[in-house]
Amino acid sequence: MSRDRRNILFVMCDQLRWDYLACTGHPRLRTPNIDALAARGVLFSRAYCQSPICGSSRMSFYTGRYVDSHGAAWNNFPLKVGELTLGDHLRALGVRTALVGKTHMAADVEGMARLGIDPGSQIGVRVAECGFDPFERDDGLHGAGPAGKYDPREPRYNAWLREQGYDGENPWEDWANAALDEDGNLLSGWLLRNSSRPARVKAEHSETPYMTQRALDFIDAAGSESWCLHLSYIKPHWPCIAPAPYHAMYSAADVPPAVRSRAERHDPHPLYRQFMDLRVSRAFSRDDVRAAVIPAYMGLVAQIDDAIGVLMDGLRARGLLESTLIVFTSDHGDYLGDHWLGEKDLFHDPSAKIPLIVVDPSPAADGTRGTVCAALAESIDLAPTFVDFAGGAVPAHILEGRPLQPWLHGRPPVRWREVAISEYDYSMTPAAEALGVAPIDARAFMVRDNRYKFVHAEGLRPMLFDLADDPNELVDRGADPAYAPQRERLFALLNRWARRQSQRTTISDAQIGLRRGGSQQQGILIGYWDEAEVPADVLPEKWRGALARRGPGP
Amino acid sequence: MSRDRRNILFVMCDQLRWDYLACTGHPRLRTPNIDALAARGVLFSRAYCQSPICGSSRMSFYTGRYVDSHGAAWNNFPLKVGELTLGDHLRALGVRTALVGKTHMAADVEGMARLGIDPGSQIGVRVAECGFDPFERDDGLHGAGPAGKYDPREPRYNAWLREQGYDGENPWEDWANAALDEDGNLLSGWLLRNSSRPARVKAEHSETPYMTQRALDFIDAAGSESWCLHLSYIKPHWPCIAPAPYHAMYSAADVPPAVRSRAERHDPHPLYRQFMDLRVSRAFSRDDVRAAVIPAYMGLVAQIDDAIGVLMDGLRARGLLESTLIVFTSDHGDYLGDHWLGEKDLFHDPSAKIPLIVVDPSPAADGTRGTVCAALAESIDLAPTFVDFAGGAVPAHILEGRPLQPWLHGRPPVRWREVAISEYDYSMTPAAEALGVAPIDARAFMVRDNRYKFVHAEGLRPMLFDLADDPNELVDRGADPAYAPQRERLFALLNRWARRQSQRTTISDAQIGLRRGGSQQQGILIGYWDEAEVPADVLPEKWRGALARRGPGP
Repeated sequence: MSRDRRNILFVMCDQLRWDYLACTGHPRLRTPNIDALAARGVLFSRAYCQSPICGSSRMSFYTGRYVDSHGAAWNNFPLKVGELTLGDHLRALGVRTALVGKTHMAADVEGMARLGIDPGSQIGVRVAECGFDPFERDDGLHGAGPAGKYDPREPRYNAWLREQGYDGENPWEDWANAALDEDGNLLSGWLLRNSSRPARVKAEHSETPYMTQRALDFIDAAGSESWCLHLSYIKPHWPCIAPAPYHAMYSAADVPPAVRSRAERHDPHPLYRQFMDLRVSRAFSRDDVRAAVIPAYMGLVAQIDDAIGVLMDGLRARGLLESTLIVFTSDHGDYLGDHWLGEKDLFHDPSAKIPLIVVDPSPAADGTRGTVCAALAESIDLAPTFVDFAGGAVPAHILEGRPLQPWLHGRPPVRWREVAISEYDYSMTPAAEALGVAPIDARAFMVRDNRYKFVHAEGLRPMLFDLADDPNELVDRGADPAYAPQRERLFALLNRWARRQSQRTTISDAQIGLRRGGSQQQGILIGYWDEAEVPADVLPEKWRGALARRGPGP
Repeated sequence: MSRDRRNILFVMCDQLRWDYLACTGHPRLRTPNIDALAARGVLFSRAYCQSPICGSSRMSFYTGRYVDSHGAAWNNFPLKVGELTLGDHLRALGVRTALVGKTHMAADVEGMARLGIDPGSQIGVRVAECGFDPFERDDGLHGAGPAGKYDPREPRYNAWLREQGYDGENPWEDWANAALDEDGNLLSGWLLRNSSRPARVKAEHSETPYMTQRALDFIDAAGSESWCLHLSYIKPHWPCIAPAPYHAMYSAADVPPAVRSRAERHDPHPLYRQFMDLRVSRAFSRDDVRAAVIPAYMGLVAQIDDAIGVLMDGLRARGLLESTLIVFTSDHGDYLGDHWLGEKDLFHDPSAKIPLIVVDPSPAADGTRGTVCAALAESIDLAPTFVDFAGGAVPAHILEGRPLQPWLHGRPPVRWREVAISEYDYSMTPAAEALGVAPIDARAFMVRDNRYKFVHAEGLRPMLFDLADDPNELVDRGADPAYAPQRERLFALLNRWARRQSQRTTISDAQIGLRRGGSQQQGILIGYWDEAEVPADVLPEKWRGALARRGPGP
């Protein structure tokens, strides 16, 4: 019975670096539960997000389309009302598609009004929530300042925290993401210096266990329905502060040295220079900042690992472990001081590469369990993977990714993508102004093949890394004449991608095939000289008098 | 009073070649009323449609966006429900936007259902009618065959014809687009041999005068409202048959010789070869076909010219002539046997170039009346031109064309487009199958600068014409080594265009500028080490205790 149920548990972390897991090579972090997932599934070792920033990356995960195609190119740029999402594709297959946690979705309120879509209706809620039925939407960023709240939605989590005795207007900020100093003063989790302190909430009251329990609540509520649950943790995204005991689980001694070189600061690419110059990059270029923040980051990852254990126990207890496709991934990474950078945004692996583990419960996947797959994977591959798992035909004219099942089932496809693409729209950043680039042109592209990583930013020189002899991406070959042929080759692949058909989403290749020549069967006769030339099956009776009079010749 | 009314009369012909007007150089055709428009306005001598096929071209006219952007890449490929149209932009400015005639719009019925849009509601009708309020929608193609009707909508014109005494189930086909032979047998206007006969309807009952009267009916119905009326004639599109006296106004002696050379048939570009091989191309390569059909085509143009006279008289009589922006154009051209081709589809000027006359009633345009403008114009320029005329700010993040007012007002812009782009999706044609190209890849692009025309079709060699020494496009330089630098330059411009930001339509550059740095004012504080670093204007009061204890230093 339970084996027939085809559920999907789509777990996303926020800002989790691909290499901050034991199973992807972190020397000190212990992540036994995530490692156990990798042992049961396939770990994709070359997976990239479509854009190294929360909102745009997620819109690609959820639409199965490149940022260039869906247009939601930065945080809070609304996703156009007409874009199809995972929920649209899966609901059509009878799968309830729900959300617990973060999406960073900004609704196209103007578009909804233009089309008369009531935001309170079921359709309206789905359009506004990126196709999900929100069991609990919480983007986990509840800051407020002189201009008001960043996120106007009041999270259920705040009310729940108050029920647990954490008082105040915004316990998310003042308890879950804050500490106290020795005099009882409030220390904000937004400030890096405070990362080494324990958060003011008990571990069981912090966001990760809370959302984990909400996921289990959803699973119970869903009952015997097939579902796809997007469980989307805010952590280890900033504010970077962990509750006890996680805050002290790791120390500065467990922090790998920053991957950077002095040479990187010498005549860097203009866009890279701008990002090195940001406050957050200068902060993470300091060893004391890394020593204070990264152990907390690691503690938050450890807490997520514990949550994965709880989840797996929950699935097992409900008899669902053997019938659920499980994905563990992140929306993008975090530089954490590598390459003299903080945050994400650019395309070095710490930022653009993502952890990706897929556990397919199908017997067809038994042969690949515990293996590592080095195929270039993109985050847009998940939507078609889910559609395929749910028994649907993948609408390739809409979904730009490719199902991962061939890799999961040990039947590698004859042809796979030659390059992974990632994009970044820096129009909202100080770099655009500093470089004098208009918002519409402020975009950069990553093109990564099996050996090289090429970066093109409009109007600027390229960047190039040869990952075979420079796996840490420390030597930019973007201006090295010896690498001109590689740059040209990769630029041509970018251009081929840019010329792809991406908006012809209302008709499939198969439908086109079926329609060919159809108009002649509907009386549209083009290029015929006379009645004699018209094929008998489309020659109307009423024209036969003239044909008879003329005879068959011209 | 009437000068304050800002109306727009947007007249489109179907399949009217740019050079089949006296004012654009036809040696025999008389088009005094259209010439008079040119004398009152600006004639754009290098205007291109966005795609040389009805439906896609029109979707670009109506959305102000490239085919690559809106995705309705061929006839009856539905326009996505979320795409904004002329009607959306103009209605927001208080302009009633209506249709009389053809659009070739295919509604995104699935998208509408997904979003809960009732096709019978006002919004639903507009979505289904490409943003227009249909005063009279009639695509003018009412063929029927074994698979049913090409266009399921029954035209009002058929009922009207019956009222005039033309009986039968489909008087559009059997009267307006048919003739009789000497024995009284029905001769179909679909068949080229019959083009020289007079249609069975009186001239005043044929489609062009009927739609002209309907336009005047709309203008009367609109009363004192501001309006944009799209009057969209089906003619001189096939079925190519004209009523008396237009059927005999021109003869074979008035038909210019076909522009073609034997050399074109030697080793042609593979896509060109496929189109030369079509039935309609082989037909129009015959001189007897041209002699039979083109005089009728010219008669249909003459009839449109008379209709323009009626329209101008109608505007004058209503006091509207001096306050109405008038556009006269076509959706694309017709090869008529040039280059051994019939129909349209490819990018030679007879197909991709369009007639374009714009009469701006503003005093600012007085200095340019009767002039010819050789700037590269694209059909997507009309939507922003209309928005500008209606007093709106052009939403450049949505509309990809540029307003023509700088040219109309004699203030040429410092920077204008370097190339005009046109696109063609040949996935529905036999060429795709013959060349073994998958539907998704079956696309070609034209890049035309002030001297050259470059054509790129995915997977095939390029085409290139040097219009300075080969204005008739008879010598394809696509494989000539001497022209490699030009091909590379134009291909790079195509690629730059392909990499443009086209889907970020929910936020403008201006809004991006205003939002920059905004999240910090909403409490999102990134990269600050401690309270002392946080700017005073965003430092919450509740953190000041910790700051006071620590002091301002780190």
